[in-house]
Amino acid sequence: MGISLGANQYGKAENRVVRVYRDTDRHELVDLNVSTSLRGDFAEAHVSGDQADVLPTDTQKNTAFAFAKRHGVSSPEDYAIALGRRFLEAAPKADSAQIRVEQYPWDRIPTGPNGHDHAFVRRGDGTRTTVVTVSDRGDAEHVSVISGLTDLTLLKSTGSEFKGYLKDEYTTLQEADDRIMATSLVARWRYANTDVDWNASYDSIRAALLAEFATTYSRALQETLYLMGTRVLETHDDVVEIRFSAPNKHHFLVDLEPFGLKNDGEVFIAADRPYGLIEATVARDDAPDAGDAWLAVPAFA
Amino acid sequence: MGISLGANQYGKAENRVVRVYRDTDRHELVDLNVSTSLRGDFAEAHVSGDQADVLPTDTQKNTAFAFAKRHGVSSPEDYAIALGRRFLEAAPKADSAQIRVEQYPWDRIPTGPNGHDHAFVRRGDGTRTTVVTVSDRGDAEHVSVISGLTDLTLLKSTGSEFKGYLKDEYTTLQEADDRIMATSLVARWRYANTDVDWNASYDSIRAALLAEFATTYSRALQETLYLMGTRVLETHDDVVEIRFSAPNKHHFLVDLEPFGLKNDGEVFIAADRPYGLIEATVARDDAPDAGDAWLAVPAFA
Amino acid sequence: MGISLGANQYGKAENRVVRVYRDTDRHELVDLNVSTSLRGDFAEAHVSGDQADVLPTDTQKNTAFAFAKRHGVSSPEDYAIALGRRFLEAAPKADSAQIRVEQYPWDRIPTGPNGHDHAFVRRGDGTRTTVVTVSDRGDAEHVSVISGLTDLTLLKSTGSEFKGYLKDEYTTLQEADDRIMATSLVARWRYANTDVDWNASYDSIRAALLAEFATTYSRALQETLYLMGTRVLETHDDVVEIRFSAPNKHHFLVDLEPFGLKNDGEVFIAADRPYGLIEATVARDDAPDAGDAWLAVPAFA
Amino acid sequence: MGISLGANQYGKAENRVVRVYRDTDRHELVDLNVSTSLRGDFAEAHVSGDQADVLPTDTQKNTAFAFAKRHGVSSPEDYAIALGRRFLEAAPKADSAQIRVEQYPWDRIPTGPNGHDHAFVRRGDGTRTTVVTVSDRGDAEHVSVISGLTDLTLLKSTGSEFKGYLKDEYTTLQEADDRIMATSLVARWRYANTDVDWNASYDSIRAALLAEFATTYSRALQETLYLMGTRVLETHDDVVEIRFSAPNKHHFLVDLEPFGLKNDGEVFIAADRPYGLIEATVARDDAPDAGDAWLAVPAFA
Repeated sequence: MGISLGANQYGKAENRVVRVYRDTDRHELVDLNVSTSLRGDFAEAHVSGDQADVLPTDTQKNTAFAFAKRHGVSSPEDYAIALGRRFLEAAPKADSAQIRVEQYPWDRIPTGPNGHDHAFVRRGDGTRTTVVTVSDRGDAEHVSVISGLTDLTLLKSTGSEFKGYLKDEYTTLQEADDRIMATSLVARWRYANTDVDWNASYDSIRAALLAEFATTYSRALQETLYLMGTRVLETHDDVVEIRFSAPNKHHFLVDLEPFGLKNDGEVFIAADRPYGLIEATVARDDAPDAGDAWLAVPAFA
Repeated sequence: MGISLGANQYGKAENRVVRVYRDTDRHELVDLNVSTSLRGDFAEAHVSGDQADVLPTDTQKNTAFAFAKRHGVSSPEDYAIALGRRFLEAAPKADSAQIRVEQYPWDRIPTGPNGHDHAFVRRGDGTRTTVVTVSDRGDAEHVSVISGLTDLTLLKSTGSEFKGYLKDEYTTLQEADDRIMATSLVARWRYANTDVDWNASYDSIRAALLAEFATTYSRALQETLYLMGTRVLETHDDVVEIRFSAPNKHHFLVDLEPFGLKNDGEVFIAADRPYGLIEATVARDDAPDAGDAWLAVPAFA
Repeated sequence: MGISLGANQYGKAENRVVRVYRDTDRHELVDLNVSTSLRGDFAEAHVSGDQADVLPTDTQKNTAFAFAKRHGVSSPEDYAIALGRRFLEAAPKADSAQIRVEQYPWDRIPTGPNGHDHAFVRRGDGTRTTVVTVSDRGDAEHVSVISGLTDLTLLKSTGSEFKGYLKDEYTTLQEADDRIMATSLVARWRYANTDVDWNASYDSIRAALLAEFATTYSRALQETLYLMGTRVLETHDDVVEIRFSAPNKHHFLVDLEPFGLKNDGEVFIAADRPYGLIEATVARDDAPDAGDAWLAVPAFA
Repeated sequence: MGISLGANQYGKAENRVVRVYRDTDRHELVDLNVSTSLRGDFAEAHVSGDQADVLPTDTQKNTAFAFAKRHGVSSPEDYAIALGRRFLEAAPKADSAQIRVEQYPWDRIPTGPNGHDHAFVRRGDGTRTTVVTVSDRGDAEHVSVISGLTDLTLLKSTGSEFKGYLKDEYTTLQEADDRIMATSLVARWRYANTDVDWNASYDSIRAALLAEFATTYSRALQETLYLMGTRVLETHDDVVEIRFSAPNKHHFLVDLEPFGLKNDGEVFIAADRPYGLIEATVARDDAPDAGDAWLAVPAFA
């Protein structure tokens, strides 16, 4: 009975590409972490060790850096699409190329009303991401774009409850009328097509997520995520689906009674582990089939 | 046009369960990181905020600790199966429960021929993992077990080449007749059933992976992974599929010529990023369908 | 010949204290990581195992949380001074108490002109720190305060050179007229006394560091740090000394010539390791003696 | 009133030097993380920006790699001493050079009684360290060696108590007759001279630390550290001082009573933060003065 090679992919992960635009004295800085991978008929490389069809990961790296100049990085999505197409051109045995990009945000150092021309301070309030998959070539080409953000840490100091849940013999949790709710959000949203102003769309979706988190009363993190997703879909026609992975970063009220103190929602211990992990999808009922769009994307479903 | 809740799951991640067996003076130590999650019809929790069907993640945590005593931890697989069944019992709206366990290895401190009775030193040569998914109940119950290991760092100082690969205009890599090959291996293998001596199987598969890595000449990391997978399947009838995720941890030969020194494969710089990332599956041709077994498992396919 | 106990200290590290001020609907959030330690005559605890003089680390933890309520956290410095005094009161054998605090910055979510009342997003542009050492009691009491920041990542895309350095037979570096200079800054400054508006002082020093980094041409990271330190001392009378630890986060210009492309300071690879590490002190000539102020502070000197 | 440059140092941190000895088919692997730094009269580099006296960190890196070949790495101590001397030779304005080395342990893959010739698996049970400081030149030269280990994670499942401690109004801790004691040990020991078989000494000291931890009843982590230090000094004449930094990695007994279960020291939760942090020195009464030996060494005193 046979044993065979199954699904496989290979590429170069975490190319730290920094692109400076310096055509004028006012520089622009684009700070990326780029990972590339190819899928296709690479059985020979595995089974016989023959590498003739393999575009080396070193070449993928070179291409990622060269394209930061040749094609530029007007947005991570635009750059990733160009890279994906290039790899399918360069590697005939590849069926698809997946490009994953993280973009780290920087601000201008505030030395005047518009910030400094070429000095920057890195901001840590979330990383912008995109995962672009280019499949096939020519008329059969399909490009899927799943953009998102990670490491966006949010907290509400009130406006959050958790009660009315199922109890069993292992239940000890007390119901909470008013608690801290905090998460380090991962969100990934799939676009219907590629005719998008990527930077404007990112800014708008990020703002919508923040605003919904802030302004809506929460009966559970599940409900809050659902509302955040709904708001994004309602206000962004080109987004067909959004997925969240949200740790419930517990802040436990500290018992100060032994010390004769009342703790009226004022002093908490922020716990590391364990944490709740809430994951949910919100999608349009008429969303086009995702195909392989989510393949190898860090997501729960 | 409608917007709806799609796939979702929730649970408690990274419960650090430590179980000591102390029935005799010779203690046994089991050191686990346990994550649980439930899937099913939890739409109300998201859409209306009603938590009546939700078994809280806090209760899942309590159950994980209680079961370390009530059921015990003869193996992570056995313990995870028991937990998964319990959650389906406790949460009527759940369709499936996925339990992910990491087990950290410890050695007895060598104070005698058999090591000390109750003093241990943590070993860092790889973490044992399992992902158990229990679906449905009663006669319809299905249990899938995907065990594996992570963080197993391997290196060959010779017996590895990389040449004959595809070239294009972005190629600068020189072919290598003799290089260092190193990786930090992630392997996950799926069992055909649950009638397995889990601990013996883990030890045997780990040994097979190490032995194949060590003793076979490598024309590429792809080939080596394929051979490692084949060996596991050939020697373990109850394993139907194995998946690898293997960073190619580059060790670059340092150019010492400017300093009048010859570097004949003796001095390398170990690079952090970027790294190659090679991922591959080896499977039996008659492997039973995986169903949802790989759902939410950190894997590339 | 004898063997004895030498210097020692003990305490509770990394208490994650979160303090919410909710006296009005507009909440304030203070997010701290608090470490405490005691020094003094604790020889018995080590030599005979007698713990009678030891105020347990668990009690130190309780006190840290209780004081977040009882004393409040108007600033990390003020809170740490109160804690240090308390420990000397509670532990008669302690000679000194050192309190180390990290404060993580949060912004209000921008849902209106002044931000949301109780919803926050964590900012990642640097962590505020303080190390307070309280020695002795009553009239002999001495309080030293060393405040600072860590993880402030800065980058200049021009205005930086490195040339004219010492060469030897191991030199291969090319002189650079124009390069990226980047660092993840650690700065710690010592105050002359405790009669300080801590929050205003922190904001002002942080702004001075940023402005000097941005606006001054750099002939080396050493020079830039010296100028940054000088500016802080010149503009802040109550600071007597400042120490920097600054990794030179290398951004290497990528050679695009093999691909027929000119790289005129536009495409860089951000390297992880190795990195330059530049550490320097700038001090007033009449700075009062530091005494034990820097003892156990993570600093290079 | 003047402002001046104070203490300063600079160098290249975290050079990942991998040295393979392949003179026979049975290879040896030495895996290092090397950091170098120079101190001396480098005021001009800071104050005027003139780099004429500065041996660049890039050259320090080149030298670290070249010396792995030219001098070899018979032990990290021996290699670091050679590097330190070289830097004082190459940089006339330097007064001292400090070389910090971490060595990661590897085992041969066990494919036969003596392990494989050139295939290795990384062991994670502690990292070997050394900090060598070379001061002055010629007859005035002084070499100090502080070796040690980090990340050695130890646990005793019994044989440990904590009671009889000082109580105050913030005390809630219950006395423990039998608890888990665990730590991730950092130990650093100073040698009297450099006439040492470094590898044998390291192995012997590590074994002594493990054996003492395992075999002695503990009334507190303080007592255990003191005993471990005493044993090292009593059995190693060339060690004059040893310092420990030991987090008390808390394992809390889980309350299983709400679930009708007895927890007789069997089920624990391993906590991340906060942790106790116990630091202590054990020294010979006639230890020679340390001078600058501990300067810039990560230690608490």
